[in-house]
Amino acid sequence: MSSLLWKVIVLVTIIAPVIGYNNPCCSYPCENNGVCMTKGDSYSCDCANLDFHGKHCEIPTFTKKIKLFLKPNFETLHNLLTSYKWLWNIVNKVPFLSNYVMKKVYTIRSDMIDSPPTYTSEHEYITKEAYFNYSVYTRTLPPVPKDCPTPMGVWGKKELPPAEDIVKAFFVRKEFLPEPIGTSVLFPYFAQHFTHMFFKTDLKKGPQFQWGGHGVDASNVYGKDRDSENNLRSFKDGKLKSQMINGEEWPPLTSDAQVPMGYPKGMEKSQQYAMGHSFFGLLPGLFMYGAVWLREHNRVCDILKAEHPEWDDERLYQTAKLVIIGETIQIVIVDYVKHLSNYNFDLIFNPELLFDEQFQYQNRIALEFNHLYHWHPLMPDEFNITGTIYALKDFMFHPEIVVKHGLSDFVDSLSKQRAGMFGPHNHGPYTVPVVAELIKHGRTLRLQSFNQYRKRFDMKPYKSFEALTGEKKMAKQLENFYGDIDAVEFYVGLIMEKRRANSVFGDSMVQIGAPYSVKGLMANPICSPKYWKPSTFGGEVGFNIVKSSSIRKLFCDNIKGKCPLVSFRVPDYVEGDVDQFLKQKLEL
Amino acid sequence: MSSLLWKVIVLVTIIAPVIGYNNPCCSYPCENNGVCMTKGDSYSCDCANLDFHGKHCEIPTFTKKIKLFLKPNFETLHNLLTSYKWLWNIVNKVPFLSNYVMKKVYTIRSDMIDSPPTYTSEHEYITKEAYFNYSVYTRTLPPVPKDCPTPMGVWGKKELPPAEDIVKAFFVRKEFLPEPIGTSVLFPYFAQHFTHMFFKTDLKKGPQFQWGGHGVDASNVYGKDRDSENNLRSFKDGKLKSQMINGEEWPPLTSDAQVPMGYPKGMEKSQQYAMGHSFFGLLPGLFMYGAVWLREHNRVCDILKAEHPEWDDERLYQTAKLVIIGETIQIVIVDYVKHLSNYNFDLIFNPELLFDEQFQYQNRIALEFNHLYHWHPLMPDEFNITGTIYALKDFMFHPEIVVKHGLSDFVDSLSKQRAGMFGPHNHGPYTVPVVAELIKHGRTLRLQSFNQYRKRFDMKPYKSFEALTGEKKMAKQLENFYGDIDAVEFYVGLIMEKRRANSVFGDSMVQIGAPYSVKGLMANPICSPKYWKPSTFGGEVGFNIVKSSSIRKLFCDNIKGKCPLVSFRVPDYVEGDVDQFLKQKLEL
Repeated sequence: MSSLLWKVIVLVTIIAPVIGYNNPCCSYPCENNGVCMTKGDSYSCDCANLDFHGKHCEIPTFTKKIKLFLKPNFETLHNLLTSYKWLWNIVNKVPFLSNYVMKKVYTIRSDMIDSPPTYTSEHEYITKEAYFNYSVYTRTLPPVPKDCPTPMGVWGKKELPPAEDIVKAFFVRKEFLPEPIGTSVLFPYFAQHFTHMFFKTDLKKGPQFQWGGHGVDASNVYGKDRDSENNLRSFKDGKLKSQMINGEEWPPLTSDAQVPMGYPKGMEKSQQYAMGHSFFGLLPGLFMYGAVWLREHNRVCDILKAEHPEWDDERLYQTAKLVIIGETIQIVIVDYVKHLSNYNFDLIFNPELLFDEQFQYQNRIALEFNHLYHWHPLMPDEFNITGTIYALKDFMFHPEIVVKHGLSDFVDSLSKQRAGMFGPHNHGPYTVPVVAELIKHGRTLRLQSFNQYRKRFDMKPYKSFEALTGEKKMAKQLENFYGDIDAVEFYVGLIMEKRRANSVFGDSMVQIGAPYSVKGLMANPICSPKYWKPSTFGGEVGFNIVKSSSIRKLFCDNIKGKCPLVSFRVPDYVEGDVDQFLKQKLEL
Repeated sequence: MSSLLWKVIVLVTIIAPVIGYNNPCCSYPCENNGVCMTKGDSYSCDCANLDFHGKHCEIPTFTKKIKLFLKPNFETLHNLLTSYKWLWNIVNKVPFLSNYVMKKVYTIRSDMIDSPPTYTSEHEYITKEAYFNYSVYTRTLPPVPKDCPTPMGVWGKKELPPAEDIVKAFFVRKEFLPEPIGTSVLFPYFAQHFTHMFFKTDLKKGPQFQWGGHGVDASNVYGKDRDSENNLRSFKDGKLKSQMINGEEWPPLTSDAQVPMGYPKGMEKSQQYAMGHSFFGLLPGLFMYGAVWLREHNRVCDILKAEHPEWDDERLYQTAKLVIIGETIQIVIVDYVKHLSNYNFDLIFNPELLFDEQFQYQNRIALEFNHLYHWHPLMPDEFNITGTIYALKDFMFHPEIVVKHGLSDFVDSLSKQRAGMFGPHNHGPYTVPVVAELIKHGRTLRLQSFNQYRKRFDMKPYKSFEALTGEKKMAKQLENFYGDIDAVEFYVGLIMEKRRANSVFGDSMVQIGAPYSVKGLMANPICSPKYWKPSTFGGEVGFNIVKSSSIRKLFCDNIKGKCPLVSFRVPDYVEGDVDQFLKQKLEL
């Protein structure tokens, strides 16, 4: 016998049983969300309750086949929704059509999310924990089994390239790249202030742990627990504590409302404002949103009290809070997601469209949702507030800037300043460590590859690095790092993916992010039939505040005098105005 | 002017505004679950999303009118289900028919429960807390507003009779009253061991607080938290720690598994067994169930390991746990609820029947469910274990009795001994303080009246005390206590209600309890389409263990040698055998 054959025999008969069984599920052989289960060295795909069968759940049922045939692909849908303005002008004006389209948006998006949740970061299979343990983020795809040949299963190298190298090669901003569809800085701050109510990683316990309420609970306004809430409340007429400065209403100081805030040591006491989220005093943009919601809450209390003079403080407070949650969802859909989608279709918030659908009114924040929502490239390096330029370092930890300029001038300025492009080479210096850590967390928690997530969310996996980036230079670099397109990491893929025409993001961010977003918004309990009625919001008055809310109203109802510019798009935007510039810069 | 008129004017113009507004919602004017909302001194009923309209939501829609006309009342349904044995023999054998009936049972029952949950014990209106606060029991009906004229709204006296007086007059057992449909003592212990996994009141914080997982999570077997779980696990082949005594497998001692158990001081260390629930060592009946589930878990692990030699301890453990949860639900439906219902229809556990329904896979334990599940009258005063008679005081705190007799003899004996009748004059001495406290909690938490719950669960409110009790003597006494039939308390009403023919309980216990029960069982995540598949349970082997489980198999698969009697009904039961005796005793 040759020595090679001897070696193989030794390996197979002696070493392999010591190492253990090979895990055939590492190559993810089951298609269409079939569940791979090992049995000794072999495996089977569980296709139960899917519209597919066959050894690998690869064969669609007859009905599914027809559905797949009729289903337009998402590129076609996206093009349809972002073009044909004349068509959408009609649809937007005919409630029957508009409701039909919106219902489709709700159901198609939210059907992508498993509810009840199925996985956690701890096990690569279903466990009791997935539903009953609220202290962890859920997982849409389970972690890569620990016994797989490579971190991504079977693809790529045995070890991933150092996260710092990836960040350095692809993420670091050399020159500010402006956002191509004219997004204003008001937008990323909205994203940040909104998502901070449910992205609450409990890093002391580990990156898979969280301590939030898994949804839109307005905890960024009202505080993280009962104790904080009580300290923020005035206990009079339902209102939150506030103070008047220069004739405007602002959050109280921590000396008047003892809540834990994340201020650095040595920060002046007179600038330590108390807010629902410990982070909201650190960035003026977040402070601005915190302040406007505070004003809105107190304004709603006044309206409810006029309607219900018999109500006590508690009822006014609790009901105003439900109105604020409703307004938040309304604004997120009609203004925020509308801008993000760049659709010509006017998105609407109408929970009644789901009343006759199979829809689960429960939500769990997914780790993947948290990861994909790291949109730091949208943040500029400096801020122009009515002509005064603040470098980021002079902006951070200075909430008093907002007070000094006043809410009107501040929001006007953020609306006029352009945000940064989401994509490569656009992470500012302060956000670089954050993103490096994010990538490391993804590795610790064994996130599946970017292409696996593409498949999970009904997209075709990329076949080449060039197909991913849409160019050659970065594609080549990426290939050097990862070796295999199927080994590209989740967040790296999202950043490096070529942008859709007329869009803030590439395909994957939208196809993966929108389902989490729509599900999270519409699965809120206030959208369920027992909640979505006038009495929940203090009667028609409160219900109408929810239904007519907008980002513009939110500010202008709470600013005395002339209404400033309140817009997620800068006023001087012209379609395609920076396309050439970006093309040139990214090719450098 | 007369002095009386003066008094009235003074009262109305001076005192009333000081006291505040009268709350017109105290008389619960809105029908059919319409929501009453005050507006100054007046009110309105919010009928949104109901099948009723009108000032008091009293007018059904046309479709609803037809449905109501066609809908058989529950007495008719109950009679149908408990008679016509020949008919049900056919239905039980034809899957199409059997599935149809079972689907109706699932949907009609669970539709009665608001999901997502709507109220807590803190507010008489919808708040954000109702969904987002997991640390309290939910409430099906909100508490009576604090500003109402009487504890029940507008009915009855300003003060309720002392709880002790009620207990003394109606609850205290003078002589043991046997259960009329032949229920064995195996049954109440099943009830107790099962419900203790989700009735976990956090009395230190208050009777509205709880620390459980709001559902069937098998925490009574595996421990209340990760720390307890880890202490109970052997970390070998997925198994739980155990010890062999007399050739049988029993729970380990707390010296070998450090988990908090509720043993009294001075109890011998050699009898301090460690189990998933701190209470399970205190009563031999609970100890027996704890022991059999321990054996079953370890037995399932062996089967799974044979099927999956490649699985590690963790996967065997987690998967066996899901099998145990599945078995629990199966046994509860096919054996436990089947006995309780006394239907001739064989109840089945088939989650697939709900896959095309609008069904919420989420559950919240209601305070009312906890209150109604106080079934202490079923417990006898003494226990006959193969001829040895143990008084309750010699039985409590003596888990070693089970070990001494062995599992086979113990379960055999419990199956042969008759449980007590649920109803008046049948609370044993040890349970009297528990029920007195329960009534006080109901008052602290301002539970609405028994008749309000009747209406909420689609029953007509009782018009007289005699209609409630079905006799005159207790009815008269009750009237003296409460003054008004609409002021009878929730738990008191459940105990005092006349029993249905051929049934363990009166109408209300079944009509109110069954919805909570069915909802809680079928809303478990394992019943949802992404969970209910072979791979979740380790393949067809594990799936079949779940689907073929029964109370008899549970014991006999885990007892060496001859299978003892395992039955929720005593073997010597003859229909109606104690009816005369009970009639006579209750008239005394």
